[in-house]
Amino acid sequence: MASPIASAALRSRIKRPSMLKKLCHPEDLLPHFPNGAYIGWSGFTGVGYPKKMPTFLADHVEKNSLQGKMRYSLFVGASSGAETENRWAALDMIERRAPHQVGKNISKGINEGRIKFFDKHLSMFPVDLVYGFYTKDRPSNKIDVVVVEATEIKEDGSIVPGASVGATPELLQLADKIIIEVNTALPNFDGLHDITMTDLPPRRKPYLITNVEDRIGTNSIPIDPEKVVGILESDYQDQTLPNAAPDEASKRIAGYLIEFFEHEVKHGRLPANLLPIQSGIGNIANAVIGGLDNSNFRNLKVWTEVIQDTFLDLFDSGRLDFATATSVRFSPAGFERFYNNWEDYKNKLLLRSQQVSNSPEIIRRLGVIGMNTPVEVDIYAHANSTCVMGSRMLNGLGGSADFLRSAKYSIMHTPSTRPSKTDPHGVSCIVPMCTHVDQTEHDLDIVVTENGLADVRGLSPRERARVIIDQCAHDVYKPILRAYFEKAESECLRKGMGHEPHLLWNAFDMHRALSEEGSMQKVKMW
Amino acid sequence: MASPIASAALRSRIKRPSMLKKLCHPEDLLPHFPNGAYIGWSGFTGVGYPKKMPTFLADHVEKNSLQGKMRYSLFVGASSGAETENRWAALDMIERRAPHQVGKNISKGINEGRIKFFDKHLSMFPVDLVYGFYTKDRPSNKIDVVVVEATEIKEDGSIVPGASVGATPELLQLADKIIIEVNTALPNFDGLHDITMTDLPPRRKPYLITNVEDRIGTNSIPIDPEKVVGILESDYQDQTLPNAAPDEASKRIAGYLIEFFEHEVKHGRLPANLLPIQSGIGNIANAVIGGLDNSNFRNLKVWTEVIQDTFLDLFDSGRLDFATATSVRFSPAGFERFYNNWEDYKNKLLLRSQQVSNSPEIIRRLGVIGMNTPVEVDIYAHANSTCVMGSRMLNGLGGSADFLRSAKYSIMHTPSTRPSKTDPHGVSCIVPMCTHVDQTEHDLDIVVTENGLADVRGLSPRERARVIIDQCAHDVYKPILRAYFEKAESECLRKGMGHEPHLLWNAFDMHRALSEEGSMQKVKMW
Repeated sequence: MASPIASAALRSRIKRPSMLKKLCHPEDLLPHFPNGAYIGWSGFTGVGYPKKMPTFLADHVEKNSLQGKMRYSLFVGASSGAETENRWAALDMIERRAPHQVGKNISKGINEGRIKFFDKHLSMFPVDLVYGFYTKDRPSNKIDVVVVEATEIKEDGSIVPGASVGATPELLQLADKIIIEVNTALPNFDGLHDITMTDLPPRRKPYLITNVEDRIGTNSIPIDPEKVVGILESDYQDQTLPNAAPDEASKRIAGYLIEFFEHEVKHGRLPANLLPIQSGIGNIANAVIGGLDNSNFRNLKVWTEVIQDTFLDLFDSGRLDFATATSVRFSPAGFERFYNNWEDYKNKLLLRSQQVSNSPEIIRRLGVIGMNTPVEVDIYAHANSTCVMGSRMLNGLGGSADFLRSAKYSIMHTPSTRPSKTDPHGVSCIVPMCTHVDQTEHDLDIVVTENGLADVRGLSPRERARVIIDQCAHDVYKPILRAYFEKAESECLRKGMGHEPHLLWNAFDMHRALSEEGSMQKVKMW
Repeated sequence: MASPIASAALRSRIKRPSMLKKLCHPEDLLPHFPNGAYIGWSGFTGVGYPKKMPTFLADHVEKNSLQGKMRYSLFVGASSGAETENRWAALDMIERRAPHQVGKNISKGINEGRIKFFDKHLSMFPVDLVYGFYTKDRPSNKIDVVVVEATEIKEDGSIVPGASVGATPELLQLADKIIIEVNTALPNFDGLHDITMTDLPPRRKPYLITNVEDRIGTNSIPIDPEKVVGILESDYQDQTLPNAAPDEASKRIAGYLIEFFEHEVKHGRLPANLLPIQSGIGNIANAVIGGLDNSNFRNLKVWTEVIQDTFLDLFDSGRLDFATATSVRFSPAGFERFYNNWEDYKNKLLLRSQQVSNSPEIIRRLGVIGMNTPVEVDIYAHANSTCVMGSRMLNGLGGSADFLRSAKYSIMHTPSTRPSKTDPHGVSCIVPMCTHVDQTEHDLDIVVTENGLADVRGLSPRERARVIIDQCAHDVYKPILRAYFEKAESECLRKGMGHEPHLLWNAFDMHRALSEEGSMQKVKMW
């Protein structure tokens, strides 16, 4: 097939003439994707991912009934767009996936054993990649093909990413071949990124960032032009979803947190404009940022993983001075607002690689306030962020442990209960023992639900259990959790093993009641 | 009582004349220790702790039958000397303790509920102290009295610590009153320390260390002289214990690790002189360092928490170029060797605060090889470092998670079994599910026992389980663990929840068999 002719839009985005010569059709690139290949994509939390090549490959498999015959190991900084990786999963195109994913078909594939998945801390995944840990059994030690989205190719061949940086720098460092999708439907994001590459020890250097707005890198990601096997023009938007409005429970949680921050400011443990805020994804996170917008705090700063719509409100009300992350994941309406007011926002925003946005070094130095939502928290302040009933993978660890381990304030916010199929309060999010532990008791400072806030700083496990049950558990579960704790306490103290009392053979009885009788409320009391 | 007369030895150690005027007897300082006081001591892993004042207070309680009437909250960087904190525990003088401890009476007090104990990451404990997190309910926000051992007081009033730095800088920052024990029985350690104090965000700065030998601080710890309420002369050594010789199992573990390092060097993932080594305390750790001494590695460097006798051998054989830590904890014979060859060793050693020695920032930057011994590891590579049977506290978390989270290579070494009362292999150190999780599956790269080495980098949980059981479990437990895993796998995959398969209601059956029938071998198979 003849090479495509570059549109004017595309020519304006490709400043290096030799790259224009590599313009091609997706079908020309098919031979680079043999069954079993190791593939990397740009992208993070469903933005900045490649669209054209993955979609073509999915179409190819579908049209030619190649399901199960073109399977790949797929590495992306975090989740990609549902219409790409989730469709790949539905077409049985994913052999292995790391370190995060979102989509019904992909989690189904993982939990039914077709997809091998591991979830590494998002700050460490790109470093372990460069160490060669994930390609150690390959002859080349490389990732075969890396497909990246760019909004510009500069004269030196370097690329300007779109709405995320993620693990793209490290994936490109480790790529054997590179395919670039230049997206002409997006604005040129030039100037919005601060790019650093990864050195190997003993040559690694400090990240000289002491303020959220500090720049330590370049505007674009360097690329070895000889590795580029093809350039595609891409012309559609990141496929994101609209945000849900925060519910009452989330608003109450936000209220407790604002009150807590005010208390800490009053006692001199936080400056009047707080410290840089990290906020996860979801209903409660949105409510907390919304709550800040109705507070008296000013000159706020954000050091986080993902910037969402609510931060635009904080900018617009003048409360937020600067925000930095590894991706901007707005709703379709949010992106429209962002692109329409580009000149206003662009100097208040900076996107970095996930290794930097989630860097324990910087999170600890800046004294970040870290907030996340778990699957469940136990009475001693361990938290499960990944596996329901200890076994069923949701999306992966993400950056939760990067932030919660190193933040000055490590905060878990959760509704006290969730509905089961038969009981609106069938699942207590406060449990005797987590069925899977991603955050340890040594990591968390604050647990908060719509019932109240437990401040566990400096408390022994038995003190923690009392305050978490009293402050955070739902009323219907308070007597149940107290009964567990009191029996465990009395038995373990008697046996001289009462530091962190458990009834080990009954620690998951509430989960068993949920599984066998449809609600944790139906547990047989200890 | 008249002030004591300063000995010539003491005068040679106190360069600031006004400090000599504060020389006093321990009994003069008794009023500074009211019941309920918050107290800090210098010290780390049983070296560099104050001896005179704690011993006097214990004698005072004993002589006057004040058990239970003089109880304190005691903060020390890690463990102190057994003859001090353990005796305090025996005399019921400890109300609260953090973040680590060693001694039969103190762990008895914790597990019987008399002592409130919490174990925070050793790198974070001093920072949380300075944040005011542990004194937030006190009117003064301070630690009432901090007692520190020094080997010199300089003209500016700053102190030169002894064999450890630990959390002393931060304890002194937060002290309301200070007592200094000048130890004239130890050599003057001047020049062996690199001292940094802790700033609060948003004013924290990077630790500009890129090599293990880099100095970024001062030789001594600054002190506000007006806070000093008394100076004592102390005249006895750190009370350490002799080391046991490594057993056969430990030597085999060391052999597998040396082989692994050679493999990584061969494949270009490690430089020929490796990367800085961190090694915990205990038999296996000693065997690994001993193994390096019989290897072909040269120009080694050590970035660790505690320096032990075996490192002296590595220095003497010319294999080790430089070692840095927060304490030197030698055996009595080791200290003699160290002091006798002071001029040889002093330029190859540096002691830093535990916040720096255990800093995730530096550990990650340097690409440290981190090695620790757990209570138990599970088939999915979670590890328990603290609580036997999920409840009984041993010593505390220590720096295990500081290193294992951030190291380039995160290694857990353990014998595959330990004896129970009735069965030499009654306890398997490889279990279906850890009864307490301190290190998560997202943290560990390598698990090694005397049976073999499991390299779990980049593996999904089900792949990990197979390799850990095959490589690490003891032969008598292999069929038991396989039966658990295979049944869990088949049940969970069938239910569409097979990412990390567990039989949740039976996950602790092996522990139950140990508890009820004396050996995990007696478990009823699943």
